[in-house]
Amino acid sequence: MSGNTFGKLFSVTSFGESHGPAIGCIVDGCPPGLALTASDIQIDLDRRKPGQSRHTTQRREADEVQILSGVFEGKTTGTTIALLIHNTDQRSKDYGDIMDRFRPGHADYTYYKKYGFRDYRGGGRSSARETAMRVAAGSIAKKWLLERYGVVIRGYLSQLGPIVAEALDWDEIANNPFFCPDASKVQPMEDYMDALRKEGNSVGAKITTVASNVPPGWGEPIFDRLDADIAHAMMSINAAKGVEIGAGFACVAQKGTEHRDEITMQGFLSNHSGGVLGGISSGQEIIVHTAFKPTSSMRLPGRSVNLDGEAVEVITKGRHDPCVGIRATPICEAMLAITLMDHALRHRGQNADVTTDLPDIPASA
Amino acid sequence: MSGNTFGKLFSVTSFGESHGPAIGCIVDGCPPGLALTASDIQIDLDRRKPGQSRHTTQRREADEVQILSGVFEGKTTGTTIALLIHNTDQRSKDYGDIMDRFRPGHADYTYYKKYGFRDYRGGGRSSARETAMRVAAGSIAKKWLLERYGVVIRGYLSQLGPIVAEALDWDEIANNPFFCPDASKVQPMEDYMDALRKEGNSVGAKITTVASNVPPGWGEPIFDRLDADIAHAMMSINAAKGVEIGAGFACVAQKGTEHRDEITMQGFLSNHSGGVLGGISSGQEIIVHTAFKPTSSMRLPGRSVNLDGEAVEVITKGRHDPCVGIRATPICEAMLAITLMDHALRHRGQNADVTTDLPDIPASA
Amino acid sequence: MSGNTFGKLFSVTSFGESHGPAIGCIVDGCPPGLALTASDIQIDLDRRKPGQSRHTTQRREADEVQILSGVFEGKTTGTTIALLIHNTDQRSKDYGDIMDRFRPGHADYTYYKKYGFRDYRGGGRSSARETAMRVAAGSIAKKWLLERYGVVIRGYLSQLGPIVAEALDWDEIANNPFFCPDASKVQPMEDYMDALRKEGNSVGAKITTVASNVPPGWGEPIFDRLDADIAHAMMSINAAKGVEIGAGFACVAQKGTEHRDEITMQGFLSNHSGGVLGGISSGQEIIVHTAFKPTSSMRLPGRSVNLDGEAVEVITKGRHDPCVGIRATPICEAMLAITLMDHALRHRGQNADVTTDLPDIPASA
Amino acid sequence: MSGNTFGKLFSVTSFGESHGPAIGCIVDGCPPGLALTASDIQIDLDRRKPGQSRHTTQRREADEVQILSGVFEGKTTGTTIALLIHNTDQRSKDYGDIMDRFRPGHADYTYYKKYGFRDYRGGGRSSARETAMRVAAGSIAKKWLLERYGVVIRGYLSQLGPIVAEALDWDEIANNPFFCPDASKVQPMEDYMDALRKEGNSVGAKITTVASNVPPGWGEPIFDRLDADIAHAMMSINAAKGVEIGAGFACVAQKGTEHRDEITMQGFLSNHSGGVLGGISSGQEIIVHTAFKPTSSMRLPGRSVNLDGEAVEVITKGRHDPCVGIRATPICEAMLAITLMDHALRHRGQNADVTTDLPDIPASA
Repeated sequence: MSGNTFGKLFSVTSFGESHGPAIGCIVDGCPPGLALTASDIQIDLDRRKPGQSRHTTQRREADEVQILSGVFEGKTTGTTIALLIHNTDQRSKDYGDIMDRFRPGHADYTYYKKYGFRDYRGGGRSSARETAMRVAAGSIAKKWLLERYGVVIRGYLSQLGPIVAEALDWDEIANNPFFCPDASKVQPMEDYMDALRKEGNSVGAKITTVASNVPPGWGEPIFDRLDADIAHAMMSINAAKGVEIGAGFACVAQKGTEHRDEITMQGFLSNHSGGVLGGISSGQEIIVHTAFKPTSSMRLPGRSVNLDGEAVEVITKGRHDPCVGIRATPICEAMLAITLMDHALRHRGQNADVTTDLPDIPASA
Repeated sequence: MSGNTFGKLFSVTSFGESHGPAIGCIVDGCPPGLALTASDIQIDLDRRKPGQSRHTTQRREADEVQILSGVFEGKTTGTTIALLIHNTDQRSKDYGDIMDRFRPGHADYTYYKKYGFRDYRGGGRSSARETAMRVAAGSIAKKWLLERYGVVIRGYLSQLGPIVAEALDWDEIANNPFFCPDASKVQPMEDYMDALRKEGNSVGAKITTVASNVPPGWGEPIFDRLDADIAHAMMSINAAKGVEIGAGFACVAQKGTEHRDEITMQGFLSNHSGGVLGGISSGQEIIVHTAFKPTSSMRLPGRSVNLDGEAVEVITKGRHDPCVGIRATPICEAMLAITLMDHALRHRGQNADVTTDLPDIPASA
Repeated sequence: MSGNTFGKLFSVTSFGESHGPAIGCIVDGCPPGLALTASDIQIDLDRRKPGQSRHTTQRREADEVQILSGVFEGKTTGTTIALLIHNTDQRSKDYGDIMDRFRPGHADYTYYKKYGFRDYRGGGRSSARETAMRVAAGSIAKKWLLERYGVVIRGYLSQLGPIVAEALDWDEIANNPFFCPDASKVQPMEDYMDALRKEGNSVGAKITTVASNVPPGWGEPIFDRLDADIAHAMMSINAAKGVEIGAGFACVAQKGTEHRDEITMQGFLSNHSGGVLGGISSGQEIIVHTAFKPTSSMRLPGRSVNLDGEAVEVITKGRHDPCVGIRATPICEAMLAITLMDHALRHRGQNADVTTDLPDIPASA
Repeated sequence: MSGNTFGKLFSVTSFGESHGPAIGCIVDGCPPGLALTASDIQIDLDRRKPGQSRHTTQRREADEVQILSGVFEGKTTGTTIALLIHNTDQRSKDYGDIMDRFRPGHADYTYYKKYGFRDYRGGGRSSARETAMRVAAGSIAKKWLLERYGVVIRGYLSQLGPIVAEALDWDEIANNPFFCPDASKVQPMEDYMDALRKEGNSVGAKITTVASNVPPGWGEPIFDRLDADIAHAMMSINAAKGVEIGAGFACVAQKGTEHRDEITMQGFLSNHSGGVLGGISSGQEIIVHTAFKPTSSMRLPGRSVNLDGEAVEVITKGRHDPCVGIRATPICEAMLAITLMDHALRHRGQNADVTTDLPDIPASA
């Protein structure tokens, strides 16, 4: 209950700091019998791993995951799965010159006020390093959802700074270092990032995450609506500042006749709802957009104060992502997967006996 | 854990359907000694109440709240506070003609698939009627936050369909039926709503909610970040489709130098973060935007299916809000208050002993 | 999380004080489709109701329960069920003379220290009056367990003061005012209670609760073992001081060869385990013993202090149960039922897909 | 929520199987600033460690604990503390001959039914090996409770099979291999255990755990009473079959005049309540008794069935504790400490502002 656990029936509890010996998590509630090896998890971890291109941090982390429990003879046992990644690149000298000052836009000041001390080692617990464990845990959820229900969870970068991906080619995403689904925007993104890096600045990004084949009925009424839990999940990712389901903020200017998704037995006629109605999945694609702010770690100096309250200038030298959104796609997928798996289990706990005569309405006509 | 509870140390569990005998909630975790009467709660309920102007539903509900427990000699006891509102206007004939069909854009179909039956009485549990209890519970949180920490929570309608409120005059909000803070936009909104009602259509809205004087340090790391819990809270409100903290989606196109809020001992120099850094309050104003979709209850016919899978046309006659966002301001305030109070209690549970030498940095210079 | 909720997937949150206007609870997580009326619940409430014989308190409470939500056309909807009982007998003058003194053995002093004030009205929230809501909620769990899994939950008074019930005749229990299963002990109990009442004293009791036909597999490993949650449930009842599963404390002096329950395909050969192995149900009868202390409300004077720290004498006049254990049988049944139903839902949430070749081993050979 | 977490504000989530590569846990909610090293934790682990005398299992485990996170420059950070112990003695051949049969009195059959497979490696997750992590986590709670509130938590073996410890000499406990507080019973226990081992049998035990200097006010009303959570904690330990608070089952035959603890400003005049009234600590010593069954792992053959449902004989060769209760003292202390620390944080979260004029009543006159 102190904020390091997500999920109720299927849950993830994580630990670790950016410059400690290791990070890890405990995954609780995974049904028994799921085939699982470290390599199943490693695939997603490698998609998030830093240093994959010149556009992300050059910090070198192997991010090699170990399964310490919960798997026996290649299958999950139904008890807690512990995952561990040793930190191999703990150079903390990089942070020496900011150890007594608060980087603007970082958690330095708020952690200091909450906990009463300054962990100068790259943010400590507040570092985005912990998102590796989300990806690891999420890969288990993705695998189970796919094998048990055929649910497919995929994501892409839909906007990088001013550049919007307009085409959606699922096959293109793995071909470029941005998870960009629009081949025509890859070169502009390369150029933009090169200029940005030269400038010493950073930029925001938008990630879109989609879950297909989710059966109708997942999600709880009132407070634990599926979309509310998804919003919670996404906004809990470092640097997230906004979450939309389906039409999102565009619905503000929509009229009802435009927004509502009409229904036929051949399928829904549109998907402004983003696959959730009344907090419960409708069987349509669940579509989530998440906004990531530009990182505040940059070479350009900013005004701040130090522990003694003196005015100082802060420059973050280290090795940082000029656009943290670039590596956020697998993290968003993971959080969506964890949320859906949790709701799948909760739904069948309470509603396992429900049947209806009406067949499921197809996602789209 | 079945979705009807929000909050951990300070929590609200609600019950009730739109056309049942009563709705209510149990508020758990309120510290003892808070002066509290039914009228303290009624003030906020009246702000949400339907039928206050011609622009909201003409359904007549007194929404008169009773305190059934947890208050003794005018003060909270520290044990559960039960709040009850009898439903006085239970006309269910209004719904007779849609009882076997699924209204597009509503929870009808998803509830049917989840629970296996069709509660045709205006949505039953999925009706926005339950938000009255959020407002009631939230008013307790608002009162405690104000008296104990000086925290002020206020909201306004920042956009109605295409009309954007540009000025922010806190005193104007109570003067018009829209919670609009820009006097120059009230007449355009009146005209827009009149035309909309005539047309039989509905429209979306955006609500902005602000918490001032929140001390630094509230919020938990990783999953229960303050902004993540706020996103959860807001997205759990009926018809919500998007949540932003501070700059929100605008941060996607921002550069780091523009987004980061520089710090001086005289105060932060900007507030793009919306008062939350690393998931923890910074002492700046907490600023939240929430998008509400146009209601799908409208007179204009839409295509759908009935329980037998036959194609049907749906018209919702009843008495509905053409813009549910109009009455959403007190609901958003309530959800923000509940979230903050929960985090206030959680913070002091774990961190009551923390002190720092550095004074709190003022919200703005 | 503030102590007024029990259960995770199936949960009960209660409110109300002994002398407030009403008591009630919200039951969350009941699957949809269970036939349910107020009379189903009333049956168990009447078994607990005071004033049924001269051996319990003469306080007159109708304890008439209303269902405020969660039932539609005679069946549960799957959403929150609210139950309400108005307090009809709120005479608080009975408590006038103890309003500034702490009754020894009561919660008066500890509530005062925790919450900072003295609710002199018969204990307020600490009164055993709240157990009525446990019984009400439990009756829903009992009904669902019986109809869905054939689970039968029954209890009896196994010891009253020095008098031990030796025979176990299930049919006898409803024939006497003690829930005693041994007809030969009823007269001795009548005599004992008459003498006790004359003396102005009180006495303890032991209740045994049994669940039959529980399928194997319910319960979670490590901390939420079925027996651990049962112990939690039972010890949370007012006046409970001890809980045993199966052999209980007798196992301390047992040898392993005596304690272990040997297995054959015709059934287990004994049941010292009380139906739980490794925290998980074995399919045998679940057997729970709970010790209830003598109430501290009695006519015989006791030494104590008042709010000013002065030495005082306390006599509790009011109308009290000289043996609170007598009415505890339906409460114990309710708590066992709630715990089992919660675990049933949790189990099938995570393990719905598990099958084994080996048939279930019968409860006994 | 799947049973591997205990505690709400201060919580422990554990993982690991007896024969996997490692066991560990995540401790969440520890306030920042507590001085903590691995050796602080090792002290308690060494008290539980097998192989300390000829009376416990000869399995050799170093049980060397590592702190992977949550401690920075020797102090807790307020974020998750991960603890890890590598399993060094994973000989699984010992279990080869029971791999397809269910040991009577073990969790073999119930885990098989719940999870659908047989982990034959010494119980896997159901093994008491996981209790090492309880002890590790508990040592953090003990340290914080002592330093912050002066709370002292101690335990002892009060009965071994038929031999009851009659004297209570706190200094004697560390002098013998049984945690026995009565020097005159040590030799009889040695003799009894030697005979038992020779016989190939096992026996039960009773552990008493005491917390001194707990301030009044800890514990929540209704369901999360301090004694209910303690019962939950204790009954969740492997092999526990009964829990008593204070007088426990003896209260059944007590009269009210005997049981109630009278109050003077010089102190309570007795402690039958075991330090808890109405579920809330009174300031008296919290006294808990826990019954541990004789282990079912023994050399004497027992009847059972195998995976094919065939009648078989089971002999457990391995290296087992003939009396698991002997090593249970530090485990009980740990669980009591974790429960108390959780309630300390919960209490101050909600009641931090409460003050009373009346001084605390001393534990005893």
